[in-house]
Amino acid sequence: VTPSAVALIGRKRDGGALSAAEIGWLISAYLRNEVDDAQMAAFLMAGVIRGFNDDEAAALTEVLVETGRSIDLSILKGPTVDKHSTGGVGDVTTLIVAPMLAAAGCQVAKLSGRGLGHTGGTLDKLESIPGMRVDLSPEQVLRQVEQIGLAVAAAGPDLVPGDRRLYALRDVTGTVGDPALIASSVMSKKIAGGAAHILLDVKVGGGALVADLEQARTLAERCVTIGSAHGRRVGALLTQMDEPLAPAVGNALEVGAAVEVLRGDRRGPLHDLSVELAAATLRLIGHKEEEAVSKSAGVLASGEALEKFRELVSAQGGDPSCVDRPWDVLPSADVVVDWTPSPGVVQRIDARAIGELAGSLGAARRRLGEAIDPAVGLELLLRVGERSEDGQPVARIHAASRTDAEEAKDALEQAVTMGDEACEPLPLVLGSVGFDGEDHSARP
Amino acid sequence: VTPSAVALIGRKRDGGALSAAEIGWLISAYLRNEVDDAQMAAFLMAGVIRGFNDDEAAALTEVLVETGRSIDLSILKGPTVDKHSTGGVGDVTTLIVAPMLAAAGCQVAKLSGRGLGHTGGTLDKLESIPGMRVDLSPEQVLRQVEQIGLAVAAAGPDLVPGDRRLYALRDVTGTVGDPALIASSVMSKKIAGGAAHILLDVKVGGGALVADLEQARTLAERCVTIGSAHGRRVGALLTQMDEPLAPAVGNALEVGAAVEVLRGDRRGPLHDLSVELAAATLRLIGHKEEEAVSKSAGVLASGEALEKFRELVSAQGGDPSCVDRPWDVLPSADVVVDWTPSPGVVQRIDARAIGELAGSLGAARRRLGEAIDPAVGLELLLRVGERSEDGQPVARIHAASRTDAEEAKDALEQAVTMGDEACEPLPLVLGSVGFDGEDHSARP
Repeated sequence: VTPSAVALIGRKRDGGALSAAEIGWLISAYLRNEVDDAQMAAFLMAGVIRGFNDDEAAALTEVLVETGRSIDLSILKGPTVDKHSTGGVGDVTTLIVAPMLAAAGCQVAKLSGRGLGHTGGTLDKLESIPGMRVDLSPEQVLRQVEQIGLAVAAAGPDLVPGDRRLYALRDVTGTVGDPALIASSVMSKKIAGGAAHILLDVKVGGGALVADLEQARTLAERCVTIGSAHGRRVGALLTQMDEPLAPAVGNALEVGAAVEVLRGDRRGPLHDLSVELAAATLRLIGHKEEEAVSKSAGVLASGEALEKFRELVSAQGGDPSCVDRPWDVLPSADVVVDWTPSPGVVQRIDARAIGELAGSLGAARRRLGEAIDPAVGLELLLRVGERSEDGQPVARIHAASRTDAEEAKDALEQAVTMGDEACEPLPLVLGSVGFDGEDHSARP
Repeated sequence: VTPSAVALIGRKRDGGALSAAEIGWLISAYLRNEVDDAQMAAFLMAGVIRGFNDDEAAALTEVLVETGRSIDLSILKGPTVDKHSTGGVGDVTTLIVAPMLAAAGCQVAKLSGRGLGHTGGTLDKLESIPGMRVDLSPEQVLRQVEQIGLAVAAAGPDLVPGDRRLYALRDVTGTVGDPALIASSVMSKKIAGGAAHILLDVKVGGGALVADLEQARTLAERCVTIGSAHGRRVGALLTQMDEPLAPAVGNALEVGAAVEVLRGDRRGPLHDLSVELAAATLRLIGHKEEEAVSKSAGVLASGEALEKFRELVSAQGGDPSCVDRPWDVLPSADVVVDWTPSPGVVQRIDARAIGELAGSLGAARRRLGEAIDPAVGLELLLRVGERSEDGQPVARIHAASRTDAEEAKDALEQAVTMGDEACEPLPLVLGSVGFDGEDHSARP
């Protein structure tokens, strides 16, 4: 018997649950255009308000995965791992953590999307390296991982096309923020990506998709449950995204900062979180906590991670000298000016506002297909809790023109709050999900 | 500033309310195709779950009225009245009550829709009278009401086109049953129809849009409030629709039953409810309760209502002899067979199942534009609580073929429950709304 879309919508409206078969039918029928946008929008809204249970989220993930072509990583020797961030400002950790994990013996086939909106995408950042290619076929990705343990490439149109269609609908119908919908969207792509171990960096705060810690925990728990239902080992760190993570926001600026961390030239939150994320991933593949942390710090300190990054850049056609002299090789902006507020303690740096400012300087695209300027962005010279002395700049603007730079100064006045009182630095990791108790079973 | 559809959807999703201006913008933008079906469906679903307040319902009604052409009845002498049923099975009261009210001095410009689904429409019923026309222009309606106090015609495409579009969307997205949405749909058409006094017959039960008395009361209260906000005097009777109202279900069969009531040849629930509805309408125009009831019964007993019905049929091109010899003039079915169950007391007659059975015999259309068979349907010879003696039929099937008739017998076995225990007849009127306390002000 064919289910009726109206009956299934009505059941969700009244607070009921759908079976896996019903979820599967509804989404498939939508993707076959037998259920229309309006019906799917009504269903999603009912689900956002009434809630989806774990079985529904797993079924939704399953049917999304089936809309595309999954990548089979079973040919690879060594544990396959993936790392995903829900998106933050100045979040360039993938470019540090992926080489660290490859240096630690993991197989890292990392597929990314392009950035849209206020958060730049990993691919856009990588492409600021002269010559760097990210449009690899699944076969090329697999071959490169076999050779050097690492590839970072664009997710092709075959990877979960159903999610793209559903996301476009959610985007215009106020149904983006639901934990179960976010989790099934994220996890469908991770599961199709083939890795057995998946580390999630769930960002929490004003610059993130979820502003609230409890919501972030719910989202992370959903992802862990969905992953388990598909035989994957999933863990999540819940990390602060009230102020930008990197000391810079903008594509080349972030790559430069990442290279500095890999070179051992820069400490601070970007370094610290990268070590935490790599260690957490190593715990997912079976390392004890202490061993994971020391191995994570070790591959960074020894320069092995830097060499992996160099191999990555070379393998994908980029100029490997960016590893040695990043600021000479990466594109630089025409206008670089400092922003120097009245002296005081930095009370707040509004991550979303900084992200939007970088975007308005040209660092992000507002629509699919738009060109971006790799050179522009902002350096943040101080963090929350740090004091600026008289005449000391707090930010540095990298702009395409003087006019842009002047406008950016005004925006910084709004985005950064200075004050006289002392102020604690913000914590980096707010919690974790999926690491307590016994190990979940995972495919090798 | 142009509001954002996504922001308004999000506010309703989170339980907030929209201003009248925001509701107006959203619906207008939808009808201009600037807000798409998916966004409107998401908004409606959020509203169905979170609820719309009175101001939102009034604003929705207002913007719907403005999508079309309202009818100006101010030229008419005497109180203008309208009567609307939310739809039931065997509900042919309009053909009795409208002539009664015209006979009592009211001006009745009644615009109806075509039936769709399990309840037949008043227009379909009228058209079973040979020659009867219902497609009158607003000018023709007005002229006829001036002359004889009464017209029953099809609502043209200009009357609240926005409601048709919104209803089509609600129909496929599980958002039909909300009291505020039903109320604004009903009231937009009543307000555009121009009458100052509006009597609603809100059906309650298995054969109606709302199955629950409290929901029906909420719906009626919504309608009264919306009417008041537009300067109309509105009252509602909440009436039982668990068993079919008329002793017959089917177009010509119902018209025949209505003529028998008008002729004084038939008592029972159809007669009794018609008197109640006419009396309630007369109370709306200012009559005291006792006076209203005696006037209502009087125009029926005196034959004045029957003569008004004859004038109506003549004015709209129908054969007036149907008033004198209905069963000779109205179309009749080829196959007429009795259904005789084991003797016992009628415990239940499932109105919805009976409506669907009549529809499957050919009395209702399943899609817009489909032809219907005016002759087919069912006579219900006994009501709930009445006893059938051995060999006494409980229903009579009017079908186009022997096969249809045999299938109908099987369906009747399911729709009608017989039993040995005594059983109370079902009450007719379950409550009323809008008649207590002081009169609301209304345009003359």
